[in-house]
Amino acid sequence: MNTKTDSQENINSNPENGPQPGKVRVAIVGVGLIGGSMALALTGSKMAGKVVGVDSNQIHADTALQLKLVEEILPLEEAVMQSDVVILAVPVNIAERLLPVIMNLVSKQVVLDVGSTKSAICVLAQSGKSPGRFVATHPMWGTEFSGPGAAVRGAFQGKAVVICDGEKSDADAVATVESIYGFLGMHIIYMNSSAHDIHAAYISHISHISSFALANTVLEKEKEDDKIFELASGGFESTVRLAKSNIETWVPVFRQNKENVLDVLNEHIAQLRKFKSCLEKDNFEYLGELIQNANKISRILK
Amino acid sequence: MNTKTDSQENINSNPENGPQPGKVRVAIVGVGLIGGSMALALTGSKMAGKVVGVDSNQIHADTALQLKLVEEILPLEEAVMQSDVVILAVPVNIAERLLPVIMNLVSKQVVLDVGSTKSAICVLAQSGKSPGRFVATHPMWGTEFSGPGAAVRGAFQGKAVVICDGEKSDADAVATVESIYGFLGMHIIYMNSSAHDIHAAYISHISHISSFALANTVLEKEKEDDKIFELASGGFESTVRLAKSNIETWVPVFRQNKENVLDVLNEHIAQLRKFKSCLEKDNFEYLGELIQNANKISRILK
Repeated sequence: MNTKTDSQENINSNPENGPQPGKVRVAIVGVGLIGGSMALALTGSKMAGKVVGVDSNQIHADTALQLKLVEEILPLEEAVMQSDVVILAVPVNIAERLLPVIMNLVSKQVVLDVGSTKSAICVLAQSGKSPGRFVATHPMWGTEFSGPGAAVRGAFQGKAVVICDGEKSDADAVATVESIYGFLGMHIIYMNSSAHDIHAAYISHISHISSFALANTVLEKEKEDDKIFELASGGFESTVRLAKSNIETWVPVFRQNKENVLDVLNEHIAQLRKFKSCLEKDNFEYLGELIQNANKISRILK
Repeated sequence: MNTKTDSQENINSNPENGPQPGKVRVAIVGVGLIGGSMALALTGSKMAGKVVGVDSNQIHADTALQLKLVEEILPLEEAVMQSDVVILAVPVNIAERLLPVIMNLVSKQVVLDVGSTKSAICVLAQSGKSPGRFVATHPMWGTEFSGPGAAVRGAFQGKAVVICDGEKSDADAVATVESIYGFLGMHIIYMNSSAHDIHAAYISHISHISSFALANTVLEKEKEDDKIFELASGGFESTVRLAKSNIETWVPVFRQNKENVLDVLNEHIAQLRKFKSCLEKDNFEYLGELIQNANKISRILK
């Protein structure tokens, strides 16, 4: 893995398809939280020419237009044909379905996805025509909310983005993607797709499962005692925030990254059992050691 | 359990001990995160006369003075003797040690504690002389940081505070405590101490164990892959934030609330096992149901 922050100057224009000089025409397929936030950053910017959206959810499409996230909503084929860059920002199961369709339409366009799992889509991309036009990416930003109304301006600034299996993509396609993420203010990490999926299980997917399970733990108790949340304060809100995350995004992520998520979940349950054992055995010295070890996270998260 | 927001007017002055009219002289025993934040709100306010601190940690004592959290640092006995209200803001195991000492010094003073467990201290208070002068409280605010340097201005504003077993305290002592928390902007919840400890296990203590265990899960992985945190983003930070919380505060809390924490921890592990079982059995329909149930937390946390 190596890291590189790209300059915002290296923009890949595509004069044969007739964009404004130095500007890339962008199609964003899925104008939800991630696609919508990208649209917010790109529409009307010095980086992008026309930015169009594609969304099969009519309410999302209408909202994206109302919020001026994109200039136009188009059918998928039309959007791809008139763009230089196609950003696939849909749940990872939908991405698996749409990628072959999009790759069949592509000649010189660059196609990038932004999903939370990378191995499956990287394998899939290789089976189509022009696999070099595809670049697998994962911008490490999100919130527990979804839909175009949840889009955030400046969302990606200062965050990391992973480019996976970049050696399988055409050099100019990678350069275009680097320039877009550079423009969004992200620092780029290069990693193979299977390493990414292991890392993502540890650093993102398990946090979601932990939060969902914690919410269910307390909601279960609430059935007999509906006053329980009167005591909820910042600490609780912080640990269960991700439990608001939506089913459409997360079931496919857990499905695609099942083996890695299971490994981390087993480790997490084992760690929780250490706390349980300390309490059961009144071993408060070891409980202290567990807490002191956890405190090492301060090294990493300021 | 019932709730009441107290007016800031109902201030219990204690003319026999000679405070400024309408102002209570306050001793804060333990000028750390909670005591220090209370000191920040009270010192120089219309609520409090002289605010003095007590701290056996010389660095904390010096810092509290430098930050002007308190007007003076005094030995415990002297501080108690010259105050109307004594706020015991130390880890719950130290509170168990200091409460009998303080209650032996008390004549008309009001003593309140602010610990995260309430059953043990409420029992202890009954065994001393003048148990009616003691009021058991738990302001539902904290951060993962500790010490006087972590004190936050306006920390308690809009948050809940629990008063436990108030019927065992003198009415004027409860009224004084209510007026202080009213002044801090908190809404007051009344609950018996054993109900509090169950609620606190669900709404606070389990969040800390979950965070500690999640940090240990990922730190374990980091031993073989030191680049793992490059991908950490907001979701991870949110769920492991509490893992920075300190051992001195939390081991005694888990010790005192062991049975309740074990009950909730067992339930939490059982909830995690449901996710594990769904993944192992490719039961993504039930996985979706678990997530949809967890989403109900949105009702409660906006």
